[in-house]
Amino acid sequence: MPRLVIIALLAMLFATNTPAQQSLQDWHDYIDERAATLHTQVVGWRRHFHAHPELSNREFDTAETIASFLHSLDMDVTTGVAHTGVVGVLRGGRPGPVVGLRADMDALPVPARAGLPFSPEVTSEYLGEEVPVSHACGHDSHMAMLMGVATMLAERREALPGTVKFIFQPAEEGTPPGEEGGAEMMVAEGVLTDPDVDVIFGQHIWTPAPAGQIGYRPAGTMAAADRFVITVHGKQTHGSTPWTGVDPITTAAQIVLGLNTVVSRQTELTKAAAVISVGRVRAGVRNNIIPEQAELIGTIRTLDPAMRDKIHADIRRTAEHIAASQGAEVNVDIQRGYPVTFNDPQLTDAMAPSLQRVAGDRTVRIDALTAAEDFSYFQREVPGLYFFLGAAPEDIPLEQVAPHHTPDFRINESAMQTGVRALATLTIDYMLANR
Amino acid sequence: MPRLVIIALLAMLFATNTPAQQSLQDWHDYIDERAATLHTQVVGWRRHFHAHPELSNREFDTAETIASFLHSLDMDVTTGVAHTGVVGVLRGGRPGPVVGLRADMDALPVPARAGLPFSPEVTSEYLGEEVPVSHACGHDSHMAMLMGVATMLAERREALPGTVKFIFQPAEEGTPPGEEGGAEMMVAEGVLTDPDVDVIFGQHIWTPAPAGQIGYRPAGTMAAADRFVITVHGKQTHGSTPWTGVDPITTAAQIVLGLNTVVSRQTELTKAAAVISVGRVRAGVRNNIIPEQAELIGTIRTLDPAMRDKIHADIRRTAEHIAASQGAEVNVDIQRGYPVTFNDPQLTDAMAPSLQRVAGDRTVRIDALTAAEDFSYFQREVPGLYFFLGAAPEDIPLEQVAPHHTPDFRINESAMQTGVRALATLTIDYMLANR
Repeated sequence: MPRLVIIALLAMLFATNTPAQQSLQDWHDYIDERAATLHTQVVGWRRHFHAHPELSNREFDTAETIASFLHSLDMDVTTGVAHTGVVGVLRGGRPGPVVGLRADMDALPVPARAGLPFSPEVTSEYLGEEVPVSHACGHDSHMAMLMGVATMLAERREALPGTVKFIFQPAEEGTPPGEEGGAEMMVAEGVLTDPDVDVIFGQHIWTPAPAGQIGYRPAGTMAAADRFVITVHGKQTHGSTPWTGVDPITTAAQIVLGLNTVVSRQTELTKAAAVISVGRVRAGVRNNIIPEQAELIGTIRTLDPAMRDKIHADIRRTAEHIAASQGAEVNVDIQRGYPVTFNDPQLTDAMAPSLQRVAGDRTVRIDALTAAEDFSYFQREVPGLYFFLGAAPEDIPLEQVAPHHTPDFRINESAMQTGVRALATLTIDYMLANR
Repeated sequence: MPRLVIIALLAMLFATNTPAQQSLQDWHDYIDERAATLHTQVVGWRRHFHAHPELSNREFDTAETIASFLHSLDMDVTTGVAHTGVVGVLRGGRPGPVVGLRADMDALPVPARAGLPFSPEVTSEYLGEEVPVSHACGHDSHMAMLMGVATMLAERREALPGTVKFIFQPAEEGTPPGEEGGAEMMVAEGVLTDPDVDVIFGQHIWTPAPAGQIGYRPAGTMAAADRFVITVHGKQTHGSTPWTGVDPITTAAQIVLGLNTVVSRQTELTKAAAVISVGRVRAGVRNNIIPEQAELIGTIRTLDPAMRDKIHADIRRTAEHIAASQGAEVNVDIQRGYPVTFNDPQLTDAMAPSLQRVAGDRTVRIDALTAAEDFSYFQREVPGLYFFLGAAPEDIPLEQVAPHHTPDFRINESAMQTGVRALATLTIDYMLANR
């Protein structure tokens, strides 16, 4: 099936424009060869970033490294986008679409325990504390791979049938309190315009999957993550006489169960999964006083933008009417976080053969993830495809691989060659199919 | 009906023992007259205690005052019972039963805001803090009334057909952490033996009811108050993937609602009321982490000893099986507090005419209270009757009266005359009917 699709694509290109077919093959050969010869350099860049991690909105040295690198490739470079973001524009010698490629830049307040020669020994201020910092989510590899792609495409700039916008984005992990940043701010500052981006690609290194595997899915891929605070206002009284008050704890318990029915009874789960979790409950001080109020704090994960809005409304209706049924009042505060990382279904289907070409039988359709990712802000503006690049270390069993965001996090650097090929192939295949 | 009962009682006494009838009338006349002439003194004693409040198990000066007073009446006096308790034994000149009369001695860590000439200006150490202390529950009046009864019965000691044990009990409000005390400890130290007490009477001044009213009921009158801690052990995970953990918050919510069904579905409410209240919930730290555990702390109020045991078992079964249904584990810790203040039904019916005689049409059958009282420990050993003496101030509407245990708590001292008559009448009526 994948091979058939590729043949169909090639046949289509061949039918309309004979030089394009040759060009595609040329490009693919070039990409694969150059990715191999560039690999040592990509690994070196990644290790440099790994040794010098910087927290969200504080990617100062990282930005400088990237900016001077893009300058060295003779691109138009814009710095200071959304604080520390860097954008390089590579205009090809031939006409064609504008493709955005994105890598995120920030590290995490997580110590590095892997004990590698290039493991960081860096601390930074985080929420008022000086804490160890590391690239425990692999954004170092994202930047290095995008630099590899930039290198190989810049070297063939004259033949390039379109423009590539290299978007190095700060603060994917969330901004410090009170600050703006990340993809949302880059979009607001016009990163997708002038030249207008037609399509955007991004990837995430992913150690739970075998190295070199590419995982993707159409539509909702990573979740919208919204935070809610539900405050139930009852009427305080002695625990021995509940009828003289309004019990916010029983009401809150009913609401917790009501929230479960929002997912299980009111959400069209064949369309997409959804999760509502209460993560924190606070109510009362001692056994024999029914308190004034109860507070529920939780998270909402949705994989479909319309479903997201519906679930917010369902939560409000559920909480408000349960509270009213008890004579209590309730305040439902839903703070919208990152939107759904929504892979444009048409684009995903069109580009699937490109991913298949790169990863072969290690290309897999994955289930949606209920984690969140601010690549979603780009995808709200233009069609986008976000995929996962397996990078499990080979020296330990898959089930023992340390999760992302943990001190023992460690990637398999060999996977980066696949990642470079994937981004470059998507770019060229899209350009050639959309000239 | 009350008058008929009195006539029946008198007729019965008359039928069996002619001198007793005369003696009863004599006693009643004496009690009423002496209570009137003693009233100023009783008020004085009460004001002395009010001005010198002492916390539970710290009733040192109070005990000394009482002990020297009982000595002055030429009683056998035992001090240091359950730390600071004082017991006086008045042996009558004629044979008869042993009647226990109990007054509690301790004050509360509540400031006095009533602004009376004898309002206390006392602070004491409470849970490591120096706090204002006052007799905000009226135990000062309980002691003063019992001293009035002691005075009048001691003055007629030769004619007294039985023995009275005056029990001044510390720490009704609960002991400091780690200490024993109160009625339970007095019983353990043998306060109801040597001579063996046949019956015990006690009263509580009660400002929510009009002054001079006497309220009582047979069987469960004040609740057993038990504290429970239910700890649900789940399995921590990220809020976005509840299926990889066990959610203790949803489980705890189910248990809260399950506890409500213990009362509403499984308890024979026509026999007696029951209350289960969760007063405190703690679970988790932030919106997107499903925590390891959830803790529910609450109170159980029951008015029937057998129902109490059944409800404890129901709570365990409910919590354990709900937790098991979610794959969670649960620990149910029920700390038994004061037992049910259970008025012996036969004794209550037999003594009701005595209360009617004292309070006339201000004698009322009351609903049970879900507050708790350690008079219950005496009632577990011997038949007992505990009643409420209305004492609302006359200068404000009843609905504005400050509740017990609050800074503005204030009693109507005139009610104490009724209280003295009630305890003395119960004693004499019981003795004459049970010689």
